[in-house]
Amino acid sequence: MKKYIEVYEKIRNMIISGEIKSGDKIPSIRRASEYFGVSITTVQNAYFELCADGYLIAVDKSGYYASDIMNKAEDIAEPENTGKPIKYDLTGTADESSFDFTLWQRYIKSALRQTQRMGTYSEPEGEYDLRSAISDYIKQKRNIIASPQRIIIGAGVGALMQVLASLLKERHTVSFPDGSFEQGIGIFSDYGYKVHTRFKDAEIIYVSPSHMTKWGDVMPIKRRLELIEYSKKNDSLVIEDDYESEFLYNSKPTPSLYTLGKNNIVYIGSFSAMLLPGIRISFMILNDELLTIYNSKRKLYSQTASKTEQIALGAYIRDGHLAYRTRKIRRLYTAKTRQLAEYLSKEIKGAETDIGENALQIILSCEFHGSPEVFEKNGIRLYIKEIKNNRITLVISPTGVEQKELYNCALTIKKSIGQ
Amino acid sequence: MKKYIEVYEKIRNMIISGEIKSGDKIPSIRRASEYFGVSITTVQNAYFELCADGYLIAVDKSGYYASDIMNKAEDIAEPENTGKPIKYDLTGTADESSFDFTLWQRYIKSALRQTQRMGTYSEPEGEYDLRSAISDYIKQKRNIIASPQRIIIGAGVGALMQVLASLLKERHTVSFPDGSFEQGIGIFSDYGYKVHTRFKDAEIIYVSPSHMTKWGDVMPIKRRLELIEYSKKNDSLVIEDDYESEFLYNSKPTPSLYTLGKNNIVYIGSFSAMLLPGIRISFMILNDELLTIYNSKRKLYSQTASKTEQIALGAYIRDGHLAYRTRKIRRLYTAKTRQLAEYLSKEIKGAETDIGENALQIILSCEFHGSPEVFEKNGIRLYIKEIKNNRITLVISPTGVEQKELYNCALTIKKSIGQ
Repeated sequence: MKKYIEVYEKIRNMIISGEIKSGDKIPSIRRASEYFGVSITTVQNAYFELCADGYLIAVDKSGYYASDIMNKAEDIAEPENTGKPIKYDLTGTADESSFDFTLWQRYIKSALRQTQRMGTYSEPEGEYDLRSAISDYIKQKRNIIASPQRIIIGAGVGALMQVLASLLKERHTVSFPDGSFEQGIGIFSDYGYKVHTRFKDAEIIYVSPSHMTKWGDVMPIKRRLELIEYSKKNDSLVIEDDYESEFLYNSKPTPSLYTLGKNNIVYIGSFSAMLLPGIRISFMILNDELLTIYNSKRKLYSQTASKTEQIALGAYIRDGHLAYRTRKIRRLYTAKTRQLAEYLSKEIKGAETDIGENALQIILSCEFHGSPEVFEKNGIRLYIKEIKNNRITLVISPTGVEQKELYNCALTIKKSIGQ
Repeated sequence: MKKYIEVYEKIRNMIISGEIKSGDKIPSIRRASEYFGVSITTVQNAYFELCADGYLIAVDKSGYYASDIMNKAEDIAEPENTGKPIKYDLTGTADESSFDFTLWQRYIKSALRQTQRMGTYSEPEGEYDLRSAISDYIKQKRNIIASPQRIIIGAGVGALMQVLASLLKERHTVSFPDGSFEQGIGIFSDYGYKVHTRFKDAEIIYVSPSHMTKWGDVMPIKRRLELIEYSKKNDSLVIEDDYESEFLYNSKPTPSLYTLGKNNIVYIGSFSAMLLPGIRISFMILNDELLTIYNSKRKLYSQTASKTEQIALGAYIRDGHLAYRTRKIRRLYTAKTRQLAEYLSKEIKGAETDIGENALQIILSCEFHGSPEVFEKNGIRLYIKEIKNNRITLVISPTGVEQKELYNCALTIKKSIGQ
């Protein structure tokens, strides 16, 4: 074990056990280095981590104090995260500072005022007003015609895949583009389906045309048309997860498969990326065949998405806030992506940067001699697409980083690359 | 396209576009059939669908009218409900007038203030602070010792059963007490389990000891001990859905199966009945075997319960509001149940009323010559347990009815019974 982690754990355990109490002053770095018999740098690193994890508080010109983290279990992060704090998560989380919490709160408050609705159990399909708002919204934004009756709400794509796996029992084979959507694959295997990768003769084909891989590749219109043609001929069902289609702003937005070939497509859309990851509401559009099955067994399903949030989101969409927010974060994310790409090109010798079609992401390619763990160690989380012939290709999504932090983020990446 | 769908869409579009306005009389079926040049049946089908979807309202002996669906998109109830308004729902919904919405709103608001947490995806198990609050709460209230690490949150019992069905794959047979828990049965069948009723040699046994049937029977302690003994000998797993155990206030609360024989029990608890049906948060406690499986595939699950509501509920429980509310609604529901039982005994000739062990419910038995539909027609929804030899047994739960309405409710039941 690294020395500084040893020191980190000793102090953390003293705080957890109550040996050090909230507000207690912690020995200075020099005194602690003598006491533990380690270098100043080791103690500095340990204290830095303890502050980052909320156990210590650094007070300017005074020293370090134990925080009140143990008194308010409410604020403890998931235990998994306490070890290594991630300073820059570049795998695509949303920028929460751009979200208007006060506005959202107003909608939540108004939803909670509908006391009678809150006092009854939900219909399995989800709240009618949200489904109706979605119906109008996707007509405008994605040119998709679907009545609210066809729209089923769920708490995330996983919850909808559960319903689908149970509706599609007549079919037995399912194909995913690759192994990255572990949850979807897990659900279909659990239900007894044979799961394949890129198997075009499967009876169910899951695709995510606007975000085909985690590197953000987009399915070209030609392949979309081929897929629809082929699935029609084969009578296979296509699940179109229209994940992040709102971010395709480099190119003209590609028509959804659903618009191109309605009958054998189940369309899935999500709001987490447009609102906040903490708000998990997704929807799907069923075709006639599946809608009939759904209606015949609808009593077997129950709605997972929060009623309050559904009512709030319905009104939020109706009042035009979703459309407004989409435009706003598009601008914001474009600006960030361009800015970071610029910094990276300037800072990193021999760097080639490329902004993907799905403009949330930068593809960075440069010389590299280290090991991939160095990124995690420096508090950077990103996708490593490839390391070959001493060159590394990284996929970087700066969406969740604050704008003023972008330059530091570039420097940390530079450091990780070993320049 | 089917002919009647064409007619359906034409009329719907006229309503949406405002060509037909709310309250307008729609041509009779015969006139419309002439106008559109289609058969009477086609128009009948189209009108039927338009009524079902809430666009038209059929008025007895007068004809069809455009509804006000377009004027109050926010207030539309589920389309299923627009036809027959239920005046008294006596099947066990909660009394929303007793719920302190302002207080709950304060907790929701404070949860939304934790902007950083809202900006990240959830851990599949659910929010740590809620799991920790539940761990303390069930220790106090149900004498159950379970660390937060064992506790998994889900949006309702259904969502948890999905996870269980996927964790228990080593087992193949499951037993339910009867057919009433359709959702649970549906999930396990969909996953390929063999589902039985009251089959004590099943590898998985689902029971709801505090609410064994929808009539609210409670499992006596002797049978609980036998079940545990038997399941241990057989190495079967018992799913204990501790549904409404908080309402067992007539008798001393029976210890949970989990307290009696921990190792082969999965305990499930829910908050919907204690808070509001509109807030769907349930939890389960996994044993060592299942926890190990869960942890090995945790990436395949995603949390369904709302993050905001989880954070709010964690703090709400910590601050003692759940315990307080439980006592409060216990008093309220006891008072209502007693009062309605009294009215019924007085109003209905030859009535025998009995307040069940699960004191949410009244069992009413009296003479009856009509058909069961008469209750629905009079705007009453309740459980009909039995009709035999011109006697009917009803299960009535007055929890959702306002206190000042109880007498009218008794009169409506009296009328339905034909007195």
